[in-house]
Amino acid sequence: MNKMNVAILGCGTVGGGVATIIREMNKELAERSDSEIVLKTIVEINPEVASERFKLPLDLFYGGGKKLSVVEASEAIDEIISSEEIDLVIETIGGTSDFIHNICLNVVTSGKHLVTANKALLAERGTDIFETAEKKGVKIGFEAAVCGAIPIVKTIKENFTGDKILSISGIMNGTSNYILSRMQNEGLGFKNALQLAQESGYAEADPALDINGGDAGHKIILLIKLAYGIDVSMNDLSITGIENIKKEDIEFANEIDAKIKLICYAKKINGDIFATVKPMMVKNSNFLSGVNGATNAVRVNTKYSGKHILVGKGAGSSETAMSIVSDIVFIARYGKKMRNTAARQTVNFVADASKFVFPYLITFHTADLPGTTGFITTAIGSRNINIDTVSHNRHNGEKATFSVATMPCQLEQIETAIGKIKTERPGILLSEPKVMPILY
Amino acid sequence: MNKMNVAILGCGTVGGGVATIIREMNKELAERSDSEIVLKTIVEINPEVASERFKLPLDLFYGGGKKLSVVEASEAIDEIISSEEIDLVIETIGGTSDFIHNICLNVVTSGKHLVTANKALLAERGTDIFETAEKKGVKIGFEAAVCGAIPIVKTIKENFTGDKILSISGIMNGTSNYILSRMQNEGLGFKNALQLAQESGYAEADPALDINGGDAGHKIILLIKLAYGIDVSMNDLSITGIENIKKEDIEFANEIDAKIKLICYAKKINGDIFATVKPMMVKNSNFLSGVNGATNAVRVNTKYSGKHILVGKGAGSSETAMSIVSDIVFIARYGKKMRNTAARQTVNFVADASKFVFPYLITFHTADLPGTTGFITTAIGSRNINIDTVSHNRHNGEKATFSVATMPCQLEQIETAIGKIKTERPGILLSEPKVMPILY
Repeated sequence: MNKMNVAILGCGTVGGGVATIIREMNKELAERSDSEIVLKTIVEINPEVASERFKLPLDLFYGGGKKLSVVEASEAIDEIISSEEIDLVIETIGGTSDFIHNICLNVVTSGKHLVTANKALLAERGTDIFETAEKKGVKIGFEAAVCGAIPIVKTIKENFTGDKILSISGIMNGTSNYILSRMQNEGLGFKNALQLAQESGYAEADPALDINGGDAGHKIILLIKLAYGIDVSMNDLSITGIENIKKEDIEFANEIDAKIKLICYAKKINGDIFATVKPMMVKNSNFLSGVNGATNAVRVNTKYSGKHILVGKGAGSSETAMSIVSDIVFIARYGKKMRNTAARQTVNFVADASKFVFPYLITFHTADLPGTTGFITTAIGSRNINIDTVSHNRHNGEKATFSVATMPCQLEQIETAIGKIKTERPGILLSEPKVMPILY
Repeated sequence: MNKMNVAILGCGTVGGGVATIIREMNKELAERSDSEIVLKTIVEINPEVASERFKLPLDLFYGGGKKLSVVEASEAIDEIISSEEIDLVIETIGGTSDFIHNICLNVVTSGKHLVTANKALLAERGTDIFETAEKKGVKIGFEAAVCGAIPIVKTIKENFTGDKILSISGIMNGTSNYILSRMQNEGLGFKNALQLAQESGYAEADPALDINGGDAGHKIILLIKLAYGIDVSMNDLSITGIENIKKEDIEFANEIDAKIKLICYAKKINGDIFATVKPMMVKNSNFLSGVNGATNAVRVNTKYSGKHILVGKGAGSSETAMSIVSDIVFIARYGKKMRNTAARQTVNFVADASKFVFPYLITFHTADLPGTTGFITTAIGSRNINIDTVSHNRHNGEKATFSVATMPCQLEQIETAIGKIKTERPGILLSEPKVMPILY
């Protein structure tokens, strides 16, 4: 039988899960991969803690279980990378530092396969790693980097090969979805919901990347690479987080039979790729509106086979580890034959978010004066925007709050309309209108 | 570049879709499969009709576009099977006749790969075809045979390789789901809903296999083979169709916050595999309850990565064809390396449905006499069945209709309780109680 010798770098939540599955499922993995998967070593600074946590024997760890200094760990990693014995390296340290980037680049440069859950690294600094892997003929498994347990990477790369992908949309960050769900269901404000998420372990002490859309951005960048073969930078991707979602926005969503979700969205229109990460008003008729809590869901719309939806756990130790192990099996079985990603299509990535066409919901805070609705809707209409509905049920004599749902238009049409409103009636807007796409 | 020469047998709804995609996507397919996919010929009795319907040139058809008699078509197929030139045969004729069985068996015997959407053939008469393919080292692609466009075959076989499958449940027949959805949403009776399904093209003129659970049975048999490597016969699978679902049942479902769905279900408990196809009361908290119309959905519960759900189109020309083309790409790319199905696990298939453990809903029609509820619930309790809820809001002096929802128990406990009721108070039951599993 073939043999695939693997090493794990980092034995935290994910690395420990990988080691556990490899040990518990050795027989099945051998049958499925047509190879014996041999876990040769784990590099971990504090093996005793990891050994205790995951019930792993100390002699599985580099150095036989002794604590490693950072320098020793780094030397151990170098040794593994230059070892003839290791075929595949599993990177579960995380981060986008030069240190991690070098490790991953060196792994593929040395002719070893790389499997990682590190979405940030691959999305922000992955280009040379992918290019080098291609040159060296080695494989990069990153199923675990996009939506944890959901097998969306292989689904796009291996299962939808008889189709053309028209659009991808999804809820790809569990933390922000958990927060929005609690805001929605319990009427909590953002700060309270965030705090509860932190207390329940759904949000990190530093939740920035989850809340500001950065983590979701990494994932859609990787899916765009898989679907269309192009590299998109975080700077070119229009990203809005959920920090500014207010109870009022949730109410406006309810009024149009929608729920607010942080949506990753990419669409191909002729030769253009539009993509964004934004809170959107997802209509209740769209399946994604019913995806609550820390669950992830991806909707793929294709030319020949229509809409597909995949739902599953977006994070977690054994969940993410499962995706890593399935990558190891795939690489062990299909080796050199596997594609790392898609061929680059000749498409144009549209970075300018003002060109995006959606139906939008615009919410206004205005002076509570007769004629305001007419003036504002006329201004919107004058930019060739069709209005779908106007909701106007909150005024108190001083301030009126209302929302306008448009038919599909470019964001820049709305921006021009708002500019016109400001110029023609200075002071009528009490705050900057909020504009959110509506997703049907 | 490698070359994969393919032939299509039968140019109906699915075969025509396959030919179309191969032609329209030739460049992408070559990149994705690392092979030129060459459609050498299509065998079709009436090429002119098919050519017109799918806009395919006549010279793609065997014989250059002339009508073929059944004998000529059969000879053409034999010629293709014995041809050195063809690498892969796509069977889209359908049926389980000896004629089709022989074709498929001969394809693999001749050392050619086989791709088919023929779930009935593979589920009922597939064993020797799979065994021969194994011996000959050729591949069988049957993604299209299970839930049309949903890539559940590759998902189980290639994506969940780092996991253990605990259970599979799903809505795998679009016609019956369409009928149940209309009964549910519009209060229609079964016959009316069926007629509407036929008028809208969702049900065949002979809808037997869709309605009686046979088609769904074929699919769960194939998924069991993929997940556990065992062959289950249709005779051993406990199958109930939707013919006897009444408005009253839908009302009882509503009362317990559930919807009636025809559910394919397979579960591994220790070394036992339990499987069934049955109308079940699916709780609204279960995602499957919200899957309406002709959509299919599969829920896979795994040890390491929890619950997964896949949703998509279960039928249709280009939808089913997409799955076939993705199989061709997979076989072209990974060839001999591909697994056809799972290794046989040492498990025991439990054919006796009375052993299945579910919470059940039992509906009774009884004489409308005081003490009846107490007598019946006491009889149920005496079989060690815990009762969850009793709904008793329909009596008219002559007849009482009510339902009892149980906690999980074996069906045979309920059957014994019903026997006891009949023996101890003959005549109290006005009809045979209906027993349906509740799916949480």
